[in-house]
Amino acid sequence: MVKQERALRTREALIKSAATVFDRDGFSVASLTAISSLAGVSNGALHFHFANKAHLADSVEEAAAERLEGIVTAHEGTVGNALQLLVDTSHDLARGLTEDVVLRAGFELSRDQVRERSRDLHHQWHQWVEGALKRADGAGVLSEVTPEEVASSVVAATTGFEVLGMQDPKWLSHRTITRFWQLLLPRLAAASVLGDLVAAGSRPQ
Amino acid sequence: MVKQERALRTREALIKSAATVFDRDGFSVASLTAISSLAGVSNGALHFHFANKAHLADSVEEAAAERLEGIVTAHEGTVGNALQLLVDTSHDLARGLTEDVVLRAGFELSRDQVRERSRDLHHQWHQWVEGALKRADGAGVLSEVTPEEVASSVVAATTGFEVLGMQDPKWLSHRTITRFWQLLLPRLAAASVLGDLVAAGSRPQ
Repeated sequence: MVKQERALRTREALIKSAATVFDRDGFSVASLTAISSLAGVSNGALHFHFANKAHLADSVEEAAAERLEGIVTAHEGTVGNALQLLVDTSHDLARGLTEDVVLRAGFELSRDQVRERSRDLHHQWHQWVEGALKRADGAGVLSEVTPEEVASSVVAATTGFEVLGMQDPKWLSHRTITRFWQLLLPRLAAASVLGDLVAAGSRPQ
Repeated sequence: MVKQERALRTREALIKSAATVFDRDGFSVASLTAISSLAGVSNGALHFHFANKAHLADSVEEAAAERLEGIVTAHEGTVGNALQLLVDTSHDLARGLTEDVVLRAGFELSRDQVRERSRDLHHQWHQWVEGALKRADGAGVLSEVTPEEVASSVVAATTGFEVLGMQDPKWLSHRTITRFWQLLLPRLAAASVLGDLVAAGSRPQ
């Protein structure tokens, strides 16, 4: 049991180190030696857990997909208005991309044109955004816009914030995301609920 | 003179081949042999024009920056309303990113975290978008929104369309860009001009 726990911890440390090195150097340039040394384990230990670099990248993406799932499900039951939930969740995602290297590296790997992708985090996010907008539509809190059309623009913008944020963190700041929703909400929300929506997010940041 | 012309043509062929290989394989993986062979020249001829891969990438970015400049200046004098000019130009950029591998590779190189960047095409685009919105504001065709705030959301969305379009061209389609403007224009435009604006672009596609 102790041995299993240790193995699990080593695996997690390797995934975090791999994410850090992928984020810094890119998948193609990242070296396994840099990853194992950052995790404080031998190359042999790395190869015990991961057959090769592609396997490590798949595991980073998988861990990132779980974190994304955690972000989108965290407040599903507690925020009544589906539009407000979308706003809040986009703030959580932006903060996650800033603070969590595994989440960030997962999104980067997801758009690496060289790798054969096992997952697509942008697609996972797109599915959730479209679902939230459909619920908003069903609840009558959407204006005359259609969920599918709004979803593609919202996903494009958040992808842009993510990509531009890699070079300049202000693109993922609370202020930038708030301004985006200040711009969009008056167009998206039914007049009856617009006054209740908080572009800066309904929870304390 | 004939010799100079031939040298210029070889240089241009190498830039296009480099763009094609960077676009397909990524900067880190791209091989100089693949680039020279695609251009139909020897490795020696490649090295006569470009000292190394980084120099080739800088030249692709420079060529892309010129093309972007061509796109944003093409209709500056002919489209009266600065908001319509922004809409039209974003359609031209999306078409350029779909059809012109040099422009596309230039944008990709511009967001490669590994390279030391000589230029930043996203910044160049951001500057132009903000300028167009300021002119729209000066001309009284903007609603109560501020140019800087709108610019960051527009640049984020177009960057998202560009990035997602690498994997699925429908993100850069005329329909997708039109829907984006159909969503945004009613929020951006002063009521007096909204009816005149064409989200699909004012010129035949």
